[in-house]
Formats: sequence, C-alpha cells, structure tokens
Amino acid sequence: MTDQARFELFSYWRTSATYRVRVALNLKGVTAQEHNIDIDQGEQRSAAFLKINPMGAIPALIDREEGASPSPLTQSTAILEFLDETYPSPPLLPAGAHARARVRSLAAMLAGDTHPMITPRVKKYLTTAGKFNDADWRAWQTHWFTTGLQALEQRLASEPGTGTYCHGDQVTMADICLASILVVMRVFKIEVADIPTVDRIMASCKKLAAFAKADPRHQVGAPPA
Amino acid sequence: MTDQARFELFSYWRTSATYRVRVALNLKGVTAQEHNIDIDQGEQRSAAFLKINPMGAIPALIDREEGASPSPLTQSTAILEFLDETYPSPPLLPAGAHARARVRSLAAMLAGDTHPMITPRVKKYLTTAGKFNDADWRAWQTHWFTTGLQALEQRLASEPGTGTYCHGDQVTMADICLASILVVMRVFKIEVADIPTVDRIMASCKKLAAFAKADPRHQVGAPPA
Repeated sequence: MTDQARFELFSYWRTSATYRVRVALNLKGVTAQEHNIDIDQGEQRSAAFLKINPMGAIPALIDREEGASPSPLTQSTAILEFLDETYPSPPLLPAGAHARARVRSLAAMLAGDTHPMITPRVKKYLTTAGKFNDADWRAWQTHWFTTGLQALEQRLASEPGTGTYCHGDQVTMADICLASILVVMRVFKIEVADIPTVDRIMASCKKLAAFAKADPRHQVGAPPA
Repeated sequence: MTDQARFELFSYWRTSATYRVRVALNLKGVTAQEHNIDIDQGEQRSAAFLKINPMGAIPALIDREEGASPSPLTQSTAILEFLDETYPSPPLLPAGAHARARVRSLAAMLAGDTHPMITPRVKKYLTTAGKFNDADWRAWQTHWFTTGLQALEQRLASEPGTGTYCHGDQVTMADICLASILVVMRVFKIEVADIPTVDRIMASCKKLAAFAKADPRHQVGAPPA
C-alpha cells in the first residue's frame, strides 16, 4: 500500500485542529484522502460519522495500513506526535529534551489553553445556557485569542530559543499550532495588535507550501472568495 | 548533583496541572523541591514569581542541572513528556505509535478539552464580563466535567486498548490526566454518575503510592480535613 492511500482524514475546511493535521501531512509529504464533515450542518453527529468516530469529533485520521488500530486517530496534538514518530523526517520537534519541552509547551498554550475556549461546543453552551448574545460571544472569542497570543508573544520575544520560527530555524509543532490559531482568527475576522514576533513567524510560515496548501480558504467546502 | 536537588516545582495544593506533575515525579522516583504559590491569593502574579515564570502560571518546573534552560518547564503535558524522555523508566507511554497516539488522545480529551474550561481565568471572565452567578458557574463546571468524563467513559468502555488502566495494564499519561480531573472534582464537590470504567480505573490508580502521595489533601497549603 502506498502512502497515497494509507490515510483517510475526516475534516472540515475551517477548523483549527484539522488545519494542524493538514500542515503536518504536507510537511511530511504524506497524502490523505479527505472526507468533508460539515460541522455547521451537524454532520459530525450523523449516524454514518459516529460509526467512524463515536466521539463525533474531527479531525479523525484512519490508518488503513494492515494491523493498524480499528479506531481512528483523534485529537490533533496526538496526531501530530503520531505523524512525527511514524515519518521522522522532517522532524516536528527539535533534538534535546529541554528544546522539545519548550516546543510542546508553546504548542499547548495554543492548542490547549486558547483553542478549546472558542470551539462550537462552547459557543453552543454560552449562547443558550449562558445567555450570551452575538456581541458577548465575539467579546469572548476576542478575549481568549488576545490573551493567548499576547502571552505567546511575551515568550517568543524574550526567550532565547526563538528563531526564524517559534523554536530555532526549523518548523515545529509550535508553528503549526500558532498558524492554526491565526487562520481561524482570520475566518472569524478577529485581529490582535502588537504581536510583532508572532506576525514575523507567521509571515515565514506563510511562505512555505505546506502551510499555504493547508489554508482553509483552499479546502473543499470553503465559501467562494 | 543528585536527583534530590535537580528540580524545583512551583505549585499549589489543589491544581489539576500541578497534580499531574507530582504523580509523574513520584512514578519516576524523582524528587522536586516544592514551592507553594497561593493562587487563591494571586501569588502567581507577584513580582517574585513573575521573575521565575513571566507567564504567571503553575506548574513551573526548574531544572537546576548544569546547562539546562534558564526558563522553567511549563505546561503540564509538556512536562510529562519531558520527564518521560529524561527518565524513561517506568514509561508513561506504551510502545508502538498507535498505542502512544491513543494514550495521548485520551490525555488530550482531559487536559486539553476538559480542564481548560474550569480554570480560575475562565471563572474570572464568566463571573465578571459573563455575568455568571455562583449557580451558573457551578452548572458550567458540572457541564464540562460531565461531558468530558462521559466521552472518555464511552471510549474506555468500547475500545480494545483499555485494560487495568486507560491503556493496558501499565499506568500512562492518560491515567495521570484522568486522576487529575477526578481529584479536582472532589475538591469542588462535583460528582459524575454512570462512568463505571472511569471509576474502576481510578480505584486502581488510588492504590498506587505515586497517586496517593500526590493527593491534593496531603500537600502544603491544603485546608485541614
């Protein structure tokens, strides 16, 4: 079986977590057959998709290789680690336990502290039980994007590990997670000011085909420009 | 320098993320000198602590070994990975990329999807800008603990990888993250019903000294029983 056919990725055009997996696959040169799950229409809760991932969550990556687990790979950060262990080149983590810990910590600030706050399930709770109106929800989104990116900026601007990218001069999981937050902010038309190091790193990422190709606007299901 | 003196851990008695690091240190047989940062009194924002971790967040683990990074290790999941790479025995991840991905995915459902929702910074926002009263906050906490643990139960009860612990018969990061949610629920006196597999695994963890010793109730700063 060639890499062309090894993976199936259940995804949606604009989600941050799916984007992370797309960038990692692109960086590793691994192709996945994508299946669009329209979460704006609730397709992740359809009987057909729940058979694939009973959690009703995307991204879900199915490894069709002989002997692989019948359950899909889930949770974007776990998928990034899986892809890095399975396709070690180019690495998504630097060498050395301290450097790796720094990259994973930066990634966790974004994928762990920031992104969970602005997911559809949180929006659903806040706009029903929480009585948030549209402006309240937008203020909430803006608050978490802003505090998350300002905290990251503070670290990137002050820590010696920062280079062309979040850590040194090679793309890591931290850059993938950073870009995943920024592309979703653009979808929601939210901007955060005064984060020059973040902006500089993002500009470097954008030049790479692996990031450009994963852009939400270029995916199946994206609205016309 | 002996292990006795290698690490300093900035921590608080009841936080879920600090608990994860304590359990991992205990499992690895590594001692850290703990410093209590009273987040109920806002000590994480003190000038003294911001010099140690400019992010004002705990846990922060300082590695005093020669040549180590001057910045503290932060983000509990990154610290667990660091400890596992630095002290490989006993491992906190199983062998095999698929098994490792499953453990990291289970851990991310807890440390990534569930825990960020109930942190002090979220409480602060919801009880000020969000106009939540005490009952609203409690309903919010209960909602995310319940949905998170029910989703985990569904996976643990149905996936073949589950054993004595979340994955097979060895403790992994997934068990540490699971226990970290359950001990914090106990602090907040919140219970989730109908999660028999979670309850069974937690009972197994509780029998282990590494978990028992990390119990929030036994830490410096904990209120008397």
